[in-house]
Amino acid sequence: MRQKSQLCINEFNPDDVLEAVKTVIGPMPASLHEPIFKGNEWHYVKDCIDQGFVSSVGSYVKQFESEIAKYTGAKYAIATVNGTAALHLALILAGVKPGDEVLAPSLTFVATGNAISYIGATPHFVDSCEVNFGIDVGVLRLYLEQNTVIKNGHCFNKKTGCVIRAIVPMHVFGHPCNIAEIIKLAEEFKLVVVEDAAESLGSFYMGKHTGTFGLLGIFSFNGNKTITTGGGGVIVTDDDHIAERAKYLSETAKQPHNFSYIHNEIGFNYRMPNLNAALGCAQLECLPSFLKSKRALFHSYQKAFSGMDFVTIVREPPSCWSNYWLQTMLLNEKVASYQENIIKNFLNAGILVRPVWRPLHLLPSFASVPSAPLPVTTKLAQRLINIPSSAGLI
Amino acid sequence: MRQKSQLCINEFNPDDVLEAVKTVIGPMPASLHEPIFKGNEWHYVKDCIDQGFVSSVGSYVKQFESEIAKYTGAKYAIATVNGTAALHLALILAGVKPGDEVLAPSLTFVATGNAISYIGATPHFVDSCEVNFGIDVGVLRLYLEQNTVIKNGHCFNKKTGCVIRAIVPMHVFGHPCNIAEIIKLAEEFKLVVVEDAAESLGSFYMGKHTGTFGLLGIFSFNGNKTITTGGGGVIVTDDDHIAERAKYLSETAKQPHNFSYIHNEIGFNYRMPNLNAALGCAQLECLPSFLKSKRALFHSYQKAFSGMDFVTIVREPPSCWSNYWLQTMLLNEKVASYQENIIKNFLNAGILVRPVWRPLHLLPSFASVPSAPLPVTTKLAQRLINIPSSAGLI
Repeated sequence: MRQKSQLCINEFNPDDVLEAVKTVIGPMPASLHEPIFKGNEWHYVKDCIDQGFVSSVGSYVKQFESEIAKYTGAKYAIATVNGTAALHLALILAGVKPGDEVLAPSLTFVATGNAISYIGATPHFVDSCEVNFGIDVGVLRLYLEQNTVIKNGHCFNKKTGCVIRAIVPMHVFGHPCNIAEIIKLAEEFKLVVVEDAAESLGSFYMGKHTGTFGLLGIFSFNGNKTITTGGGGVIVTDDDHIAERAKYLSETAKQPHNFSYIHNEIGFNYRMPNLNAALGCAQLECLPSFLKSKRALFHSYQKAFSGMDFVTIVREPPSCWSNYWLQTMLLNEKVASYQENIIKNFLNAGILVRPVWRPLHLLPSFASVPSAPLPVTTKLAQRLINIPSSAGLI
Repeated sequence: MRQKSQLCINEFNPDDVLEAVKTVIGPMPASLHEPIFKGNEWHYVKDCIDQGFVSSVGSYVKQFESEIAKYTGAKYAIATVNGTAALHLALILAGVKPGDEVLAPSLTFVATGNAISYIGATPHFVDSCEVNFGIDVGVLRLYLEQNTVIKNGHCFNKKTGCVIRAIVPMHVFGHPCNIAEIIKLAEEFKLVVVEDAAESLGSFYMGKHTGTFGLLGIFSFNGNKTITTGGGGVIVTDDDHIAERAKYLSETAKQPHNFSYIHNEIGFNYRMPNLNAALGCAQLECLPSFLKSKRALFHSYQKAFSGMDFVTIVREPPSCWSNYWLQTMLLNEKVASYQENIIKNFLNAGILVRPVWRPLHLLPSFASVPSAPLPVTTKLAQRLINIPSSAGLI
């Protein structure tokens, strides 16, 4: 293979990309990510219905929480109705207030920005890194040094005068970002870390599970995730007080009392129903085998693309263990303009692929929020394509 | 039976109340409200798991929405993750903005007040009626005439200067409030009506289903409701544009596009998962039989309490057909002070009962919001006790 700098775009044939994927998953139509239900899903869900406890009370919620805590190594896990609810509540528990700014990547699913907005706070976008697609810590340090000032133990945006209260690193497509360095930076700049690990159950950074580095972390169990509860999420934390408040606020802030309905603050209906937790308990049992298949799928894709000059399959960052939630093609900058053509080629063949999300700073809702320069984010948005990633494909 | 005014409190024995309930439900422990799963619940849920569509995509959500619309007579039904989410979204769609006031009963579940607060609006409490426990329209009319002014087609609170944008009538325990009169009043005072019909699936006012009088109505399918989806809710409306926006906003405001992720405004993750909708479809099939049983249970309670001087069983208001979701004892004012004793008596016998919710104006979160005088609410809070109400009790 020649040096990438010597590549000539005339040699690129978008059809080759489709063919390479087909050598791995076959010629039949394929979806982007499908769940697999071949474990105890029926058994547990039926038990849940037979017991009559399908809603907010029931043993599967506790079991799911306890198993998530055990698997991730977090002290506590609090199940929620979905990942967005988990992130909204986690940000509240992190102390984010109306008028605050929260540092977040622009290269993320819209829920990250929405959850910040629900509080009346504002996302403040920062650039991403070419290797792991998460927040670029080096670039962020320079940006914060120039644009913020620490006063009374808080970080202030010099331009807006607002407190920058927290930072929400996100592990994109399941690949761990440089979370250890982000934690150090956050300590220095007085930022609370809420880890958006929605996509990274089963992903580890230096042997420690993603989502457990920040004061709080959240996961999603939407139907397209590595394991699913239909709809669901979880907050993890090692902090006793925060864990207690997470449960309390997710259950309408109802005071413990054997008959009276007393709520001492504005709470939320963010509980995960027991029916969904039952599905989750069965899915968790299968997680190791799903992860094994997804890793094998990565290796197959990697092999299929090994001779390709213009497209690489994204691999886990150094010192990380990725769940390979969504397999991803990274286009060479020279062929970035083919992104849409390539996607349409796949869709015409019945194979579902998608570009990375449109970066949040390009959406109307977030067009005027504070932002660092985002050159890498803007380029990555044109270069990333997710391809079929189901554990059942291999 | 003597005139109630001649009653002597010395003749009241709280034990008689417990005994009367036991003649209906037997001496064994009983919960307040339990779901029944004896229809197609397992069949549909298994089908849903077998199909692999447990999450936001799937046929059961559409079926559930279509059947709710048909049953209630609403043009559209949009399924949500729970009743609180439905109410929050319905208020946004009703045009409620931060800083607005929303008229609501104080005698309601805390979700009514919370949903208003999520928007940054403020509940403005109004008094309830002794007959149906919903908003007292006559009293409210006098209050609005004295305390509000209509300017540029909007109702303003003379004291706070804020717009009173909407009114949220609630059908307490499933008994229809005087919704037709509330609709008239709302038109006169330029208020949008969002009906909190969380508890009243199967309840009709003059032959028209509750929840379908307002511009929007919402229902809950929490585990304690007449039918359950584990956790779930629905918005109903006859308005084409609102229905379309309800679906759009509940699905993260994602623009229809075959591959790009474009969100043109702040949306929510408020979809009902297909797994929960599958349960709901089966439960809906059983709704007629549940309603029949609950009505029979009411008649049995009514008979058991017919000789009692100090306690009556609440019956459906005139011209209404109630789902009798929660059976309720109304204590004579003279024995209201026994409310807690009576409750404890039941709990000691293993029979779960509860007082009506603590009125919202007595909760710290809502202690300083605008409020009309609430003399009836305050008294009713001391006089109402819900007793075992499951359809399976008879």
